[in-house]
Amino acid sequence: MKINGKPYRTIWLKPGDPATVQIIDQRHLPHELVIEDLTTAEQMASAIEEMHLRGAPLIGSAAAYGMYLAILQAPEITNWPHFLSKTAATLKATRPTAVNLAWAVNSVLEAVHTFINKEKILAAALRTANALTEESVEHCRLIGQHGLELIQNLRPAKPNSQITKPLNILTHCNAGWLACIDYGTATAPIYAAHDAGIPVHVWVDETRPRNQGARLTAYELGQHGVPHTIIADNTGGHLMQHGMVDMVITGSDRTTRTGDVANKIGTYLKALAAKDNGVPFYVALPSSSIDWNIRDGVAEIPIEERDAQEVTHIAGMDGGEWREVLLTPKDSPAANYAFDVTPARLVTGLITERGVCEANEQALAALFPEKFKA
Amino acid sequence: MKINGKPYRTIWLKPGDPATVQIIDQRHLPHELVIEDLTTAEQMASAIEEMHLRGAPLIGSAAAYGMYLAILQAPEITNWPHFLSKTAATLKATRPTAVNLAWAVNSVLEAVHTFINKEKILAAALRTANALTEESVEHCRLIGQHGLELIQNLRPAKPNSQITKPLNILTHCNAGWLACIDYGTATAPIYAAHDAGIPVHVWVDETRPRNQGARLTAYELGQHGVPHTIIADNTGGHLMQHGMVDMVITGSDRTTRTGDVANKIGTYLKALAAKDNGVPFYVALPSSSIDWNIRDGVAEIPIEERDAQEVTHIAGMDGGEWREVLLTPKDSPAANYAFDVTPARLVTGLITERGVCEANEQALAALFPEKFKA
Repeated sequence: MKINGKPYRTIWLKPGDPATVQIIDQRHLPHELVIEDLTTAEQMASAIEEMHLRGAPLIGSAAAYGMYLAILQAPEITNWPHFLSKTAATLKATRPTAVNLAWAVNSVLEAVHTFINKEKILAAALRTANALTEESVEHCRLIGQHGLELIQNLRPAKPNSQITKPLNILTHCNAGWLACIDYGTATAPIYAAHDAGIPVHVWVDETRPRNQGARLTAYELGQHGVPHTIIADNTGGHLMQHGMVDMVITGSDRTTRTGDVANKIGTYLKALAAKDNGVPFYVALPSSSIDWNIRDGVAEIPIEERDAQEVTHIAGMDGGEWREVLLTPKDSPAANYAFDVTPARLVTGLITERGVCEANEQALAALFPEKFKA
Repeated sequence: MKINGKPYRTIWLKPGDPATVQIIDQRHLPHELVIEDLTTAEQMASAIEEMHLRGAPLIGSAAAYGMYLAILQAPEITNWPHFLSKTAATLKATRPTAVNLAWAVNSVLEAVHTFINKEKILAAALRTANALTEESVEHCRLIGQHGLELIQNLRPAKPNSQITKPLNILTHCNAGWLACIDYGTATAPIYAAHDAGIPVHVWVDETRPRNQGARLTAYELGQHGVPHTIIADNTGGHLMQHGMVDMVITGSDRTTRTGDVANKIGTYLKALAAKDNGVPFYVALPSSSIDWNIRDGVAEIPIEERDAQEVTHIAGMDGGEWREVLLTPKDSPAANYAFDVTPARLVTGLITERGVCEANEQALAALFPEKFKA
């Protein structure tokens, strides 16, 4: 997608310098566009852990490139399996909730495990990182196309030019192209609809405590020209009660084989409000974020707890400078759970790269039969 | 209640200077304790509108003292009814959602309407403002006692000394003594339980966009020594799914005769989560905040829309100074709905000064029969 009219992805090999991976350091958005050079696996691990980049699909690619950088920078290695599994463990440990991270790292391990010479290991790792990145882009594009059909079906049967009232879509957190490589997951249908001339307006949950909605989703929608309004996370229920939301689309950090969805903390509350008001609640996700091994999201998905400082302090712009301010009494403790789990019963449908299905095991098995073979 | 060990109320006549009303200017909390002198009705109206003070019970008292100040400062008036109704209209227009404001102003109008001389009008206005303030304090105290019984009933039947696990109570916004004159509404049962030696721990929703939870509730609980943890508003559902909330208590800005509750935006989302997880959801309110004339909260209670800047900007402390920072892309619009309505079906019970009742018309009629006479 574009920033100031120029096409970007969120991660790429530096042109002319394949020993450097470049990323958009998202901590500086929406006020500054900072491109960061990463040359070691340690830098990549820090970038993931400290959220220079985030979003389930993107941290998958990032971790795969982290494996590539580790191999590239490795000194003479006698025990490659040991080195690779140690590096893999470090990268997987950066964030616990999204399953793409482990999936991407494992994909690299699998691609390289038959080789014993560094050159071949390196080539296989890079090939894998590139391939899963391209696949991720294609999956997001397909999610956009499938979601576009849903949006079209929600509209009155009139030519676009005769529809003056935009379709109101609420989203939580950033499941946009900044969370992916391109297009986004939850935003892919929105961009597809906007580009097809369908008038859409997006309610953007600010998404405390890290404000990924207010900072990233609002930014990327604005850069693409999609009308949107930022709201406090408390607001969605009120809007739905008053018929001001036609559809909710969120992303997912990990989805169980039964359709339970772990996503940014607060998603569950919006799903409850959608159910209570008859508003369709969709989750857009590439199948790489489905954890085929678990059935009960609330009981089985580990929920990351992050630093309380993300709740007690917040950074923003004051007079052209970033400043962090204290929001709370200095002696009051805070807790920071990063995700929650929305039970499948609250999800109207899952928008995947293979199409839209209900959030249950049978429906997922019909779309992804290969995952259900014994 | 106490600040740094010294007893305070939120509003009082300045000792030795009955022409001045003093308030805690809550915009400076939790970082500074600022006492503001108000000598005119215009100043009081601004203080209410700009939220130097807020909370349904408190803005009732404040408006009553505003009427008193208007009369005190009035030049020679020939048409008192006109002057009084104009002043009343100004004060009532400061905030649209809470019903106490109109109730308190009307109480003053009623008390003075038989008099034609300034001295008597003034005395009656002051008497009324003082009386309804004292009554408000007593109502909060009684709410605390009735709520204490609910809390006691939720505890295991053991002596306090043998209970090591605290009872976890979640609250939203500030329905504490800072929203009232003393004790608070939602916090009154919490203070009563804490003072009775029952171990309680409070999950404090930060309550975006104005952060009354993070700034005020955390502050007053901390000053009183009540264990608490500040959380993002997105968090309550996750905590309830994991058995980490035993009870929710919120306040109310306006309650219908059928038990629908208008309260700070986001209350409805917590009520949905409480229902979904079998957590009791109580609303603590003095009957002065019940609007006996309306039945359908969602359709009939006007919801205040405030300045978008409260969403796009936030103030906090940086190096000992208050600073306001921009949180959002500079071109992204924001919306700021201040309240939402929780339907009675989601409310386990109402804690009033006369006792606890179910949130429905029959139960309210049993407690307040005089309001249901034809």
